[in-house]
Formats: sequence, structure tokens, C-alpha cells
Amino acid sequence: MNEIELIARLIPSLATNESVVAGAGDDCAVLDLGLPNDFVLFKTDAIVQGVHFTSETEPEKIGHKALARCLSDVAAMAGKPTHALVTVALPREIEIELVEGFYRGLNELAARHGVGVVGGETTTNPERCLLSIAVLGIVPKNKCLLRSGAKAGDAIFVTGTLGGSLLGKHLEFEPRLDEARWLAQHFEIHSMMDLSDGLATDLRHLLKASQAGAELLASAVPISREARVAWKDSINGQPKSRILDRSPRPPLLAALTDGEDFELLFTAASRDAVRLLDAWKKQFPGVPLSCIGKITATRGLFIKDKEGLRPLTEHGYIHFS
Amino acid sequence: MNEIELIARLIPSLATNESVVAGAGDDCAVLDLGLPNDFVLFKTDAIVQGVHFTSETEPEKIGHKALARCLSDVAAMAGKPTHALVTVALPREIEIELVEGFYRGLNELAARHGVGVVGGETTTNPERCLLSIAVLGIVPKNKCLLRSGAKAGDAIFVTGTLGGSLLGKHLEFEPRLDEARWLAQHFEIHSMMDLSDGLATDLRHLLKASQAGAELLASAVPISREARVAWKDSINGQPKSRILDRSPRPPLLAALTDGEDFELLFTAASRDAVRLLDAWKKQFPGVPLSCIGKITATRGLFIKDKEGLRPLTEHGYIHFS
Repeated sequence: MNEIELIARLIPSLATNESVVAGAGDDCAVLDLGLPNDFVLFKTDAIVQGVHFTSETEPEKIGHKALARCLSDVAAMAGKPTHALVTVALPREIEIELVEGFYRGLNELAARHGVGVVGGETTTNPERCLLSIAVLGIVPKNKCLLRSGAKAGDAIFVTGTLGGSLLGKHLEFEPRLDEARWLAQHFEIHSMMDLSDGLATDLRHLLKASQAGAELLASAVPISREARVAWKDSINGQPKSRILDRSPRPPLLAALTDGEDFELLFTAASRDAVRLLDAWKKQFPGVPLSCIGKITATRGLFIKDKEGLRPLTEHGYIHFS
Repeated sequence: MNEIELIARLIPSLATNESVVAGAGDDCAVLDLGLPNDFVLFKTDAIVQGVHFTSETEPEKIGHKALARCLSDVAAMAGKPTHALVTVALPREIEIELVEGFYRGLNELAARHGVGVVGGETTTNPERCLLSIAVLGIVPKNKCLLRSGAKAGDAIFVTGTLGGSLLGKHLEFEPRLDEARWLAQHFEIHSMMDLSDGLATDLRHLLKASQAGAELLASAVPISREARVAWKDSINGQPKSRILDRSPRPPLLAALTDGEDFELLFTAASRDAVRLLDAWKKQFPGVPLSCIGKITATRGLFIKDKEGLRPLTEHGYIHFS
């Protein structure tokens, strides 16, 4: 049983109350605490040494990543993060420079987005560091974007470029908060989420929530420079560089499955696609936006390349001839 | 440098914003999100295998304890908890019964207090289980109780009995939510906190926040049956029973320093003391309430016993003759 199956099994028994608009299963929980115009967003996320960073990672980058992952989830709802709490678990000897480094990294990011860091705690985890962040945010009730709103015929968009994040981006990415709010304010976005487990897996979550299918266009998937270089180096027999525990894969496969991209995946009516792409280019000239396919009424996730339309298999691995 | 010193060093550099009413340093962060009558409370707390529970502890009790600690912090502000998120970090092989047990324990407690469990995540911590909980709550703006309001002349109260919690109570306690809200609604409580590190240490935090001192009356400190029995057993050469990593100590010392009591410590004007004790006895006949001393303008923490008034030293250890 994997995490997804476990959570699916636990969700029906979770305690709830009338102020829960959306509980477990989207990027953030959505709560109606009684604010006249806004919902409250609530999210936690943890990163662990040896899994999400190594003992060599700079502490500032660890702190940045820990908070940025949570902020990316707030972005995925088109929300504005407001407050964060920090839990640091680490071996008994508190290395003050380490903890101060964590806090430097996350404070800088928090300040940039107006987030108040309102406390936290340190506790003991004898073998390795673990950082857990909880964030609060707000979102206008009529602008909150869920995973579940994709409609057949929607165009599918993704920001930035995908793949190879473990070569560095996963420690340095800036959550797409401004971009997400701009999208919600200026266009009728039907569904949105952030990419953390890789496009192939995450899109499948969006499709499940929306009870729909999708066709991707292979040539439209924006592949990162890092994913291309890593693959080229590996073909040339170069060392696998800094990719943590995976061999480089063909660039398209990397873009579909590497994970930790922390880009936005969203859908909108196809009639809005050109206007959206044009307006985006003016608003965010430094950030690529790609239309990578369409939502279909037929279930299942397919990808079209020069050999035709083929199903994308469960974990995003496709057979390349 | 201990955790307290570390946090004191980090607090000045934390990112903040105008909606922060009280950040790090009290039992919960207090936030003004724009609700007309209420502040929002925000808190996280983590428990770790081998520190806060053992590999033999029943999973239901672990889940209960993880959430109950956070709810006790909401109680300490006289708040009402509304929502919780759960992070479970555990070795790679997810033991489904274990995680389901955690959730059973915490769901039962959450449901009893109307708390919605709105999500969470599982992540990997290869060597041991760690549970981190984040909670939200609300509190009427004019009823939010901080640590900082104690005034010279206040009577000091504590609920329940103290000491020996590790013999069982730390896994089963019911957070004093109803009691705390009742106190805030019916009396002018000046300051409140919950007892987690032991009365001697926690009262010192309250005094620091309130810039005051205190005199405790040794004979008034409510000592738990467990603390008395553990000490008696140890004198008689009996095994130390289940106290985790400490030898039993004289009962008063145990009550002052054992920790994990999760009772309420609060102060109110001494003129209200008798009325408060009487009303409490009618409202909560099963829960002891003790007036254990008074707040003084003179700084420092003192304890009075038959030998006179003596300072309580830094970590709560007093010399018994």
C-alpha cells in the first residue's frame, strides 16, 4: 500500500465539521472560518534529511525548500500565504549554525511574500534532521482553485520547464504565488494544482478529482535544460552529476516523471488559450507558459507523439522505441 | 544552548506582518485574520518515538497524545480548536495498522471537541516514528488569555494533580478545553498557560512574560497519586515501574518538575479566589482546582514550606533536608 492508497483509506473516517469546505485531497485544506470574503487555506509539509536533502545541502536552502513547498501548495489554490509555523527535529546536539541557517533561508522567503513566521519548536530526532512547516493563507471565496474543476475540452497549461529539478531547482525554486493569483484574477481557470510528483502522476490526480481524461502533446511538454544536459552527459559516459538517487532518463521522460518541479498545472476553456498565452507573455516575460494538451471526457491519460496516441502508464514510464 | 535560548535568539529575526497579534513565545500564535469578533490561534507540536512514547506504546494512545498536546495549547489561550493537520513520518515500510491506530486515537479526540481533521501527509523517517500536528482555533478577542498578564497580588491556580504523568496520564489526558473557556467566560483571568515542562519551569515562563515573581506554598501543590506511589515503591526497593527515563523523586519534587501534566496554570485577582474556587467545584466536581500561591512584584520564584521561604532553583530542583 502506498501513501495515496493509505490516505484514501483514512479519509472517510476523518473527523470533520461544518466549516470544512475541502479537507484532505487537494493541495491545501479550504476552511470557512467566517471571513466575509475569504476562505482560509491550511497546509503542512515535511522534508527529511536523506530523502529531500542531504547532509551536504546548505542549511539556508533546506529552510527555503521547506517553506517553499508549502507556499507552492497555497499558490496551487491561487491563495495568499499569511503565516507559517516551523518544526525542526534534529539530533540531540543542537547545532546552532544549522538551525540559524534553516531560519535564515525560510525567513528570507517568508519576508518576500509577506508571510509572518509566528513560532515553532525544536524537538529531538536522533538520527537525522526533519523540518515540518505549517502554513495558513487566504483566498477570495470566488477565486479558490481546486483540482476538481477541469472540464472536457479544456486546454492544459504548465508553467516553467520540467525535469531535472534535483540538479538544483528543488532547493531554490520560487513558489508561483504571484502567477497563480494573477491567473485567478484575470482568467476563468477551471482547475489548478502544483507539480510535486511529476507531471504524469500529478495530472492523474487532477483528472481523478475532475473525473476526466487527458491527451498530452509530447512535443509541447516544456523540457528543462537540466533534464537535457543530464541525459546528454549520461550518454557520453559522464558522471551522473548531482541527481540524488536516480539515473538520468530521456529528457521527455524526465520532464514527465522527475518530480519536484513546483510549477503550476492548470486548465482553462480552450477558447481562452490564445488570449491567456498572450497576456501571460506580457505579464511574466521571464516565465515560460506552455499549452501541453487537452482535457477529454474519455477517462485515461494519453500522450501523442509522432508514432501516434499512446497511454501513459501508471507511474509515468512510457516505452520509447 | 538549550531550546529556550535558541528560540530567544531566533525570535527577533522572524519575518512578521501586521496581522500577528502574538507570535512565538506563548502557547499559540494569535492572529487577526479579519474575523469581526475572534482571533485565530495557530500551533504545531511534534512527538517522537523514544522521546515522547516508546515502540511499545499503543498506536491509538500515540495519536491521542499528539493531538491532545496541541489542543492543550489552544486551551491555554481559552480558545476553541477548529481544525487539525497530521504529519506522520515513519520507516519506509508503512505499517498500515500502526497509521490507522494513530488516526483512530486522534480522530476520536478530534470528534469529541468538534475539530475537523482536514488532511496531512505521511513521509519517511527511516529510524523512528514522528507525529507532527498543526491546529487552528478561534478565541473571542476579549477573552484570549496570554502568559503575560499576571499582576502582583494575583492568586496562582492549577487544575488537576501534578507529577508522575509518565506513568500513564501523558498518553491519556483530556485537554482542559471546556474548563479554560469556562474560566475565561466567568472570571477575569489575568494570565494562563498549560503545564508541559513541569510547574517550576512553566511558572517561570509565565513570570518572565509577566515581568513578575511568585511565592508558592509547598503544602498547597496538588501532588498526584502516581507521584506518591512511585516514590513509595522506589523507597521500598520496588521496580521503578513505567517511568520512562527518570528515577522517581520525592512527591513534591515530582509535582514541581516531572512535566507532561497538561493541566492549566492561571492567575486571577486574589479577591476573586474564593468565589472562583466555589464556582469551579460546582461546575467541575471531578477536577481538583488548587490555589498554590501568589504573584509578587519582587522577581524570582520562591517556595514556602515549614522551614520558611526558599528560592526554587533554575530547573526546579530544590534541596530537601
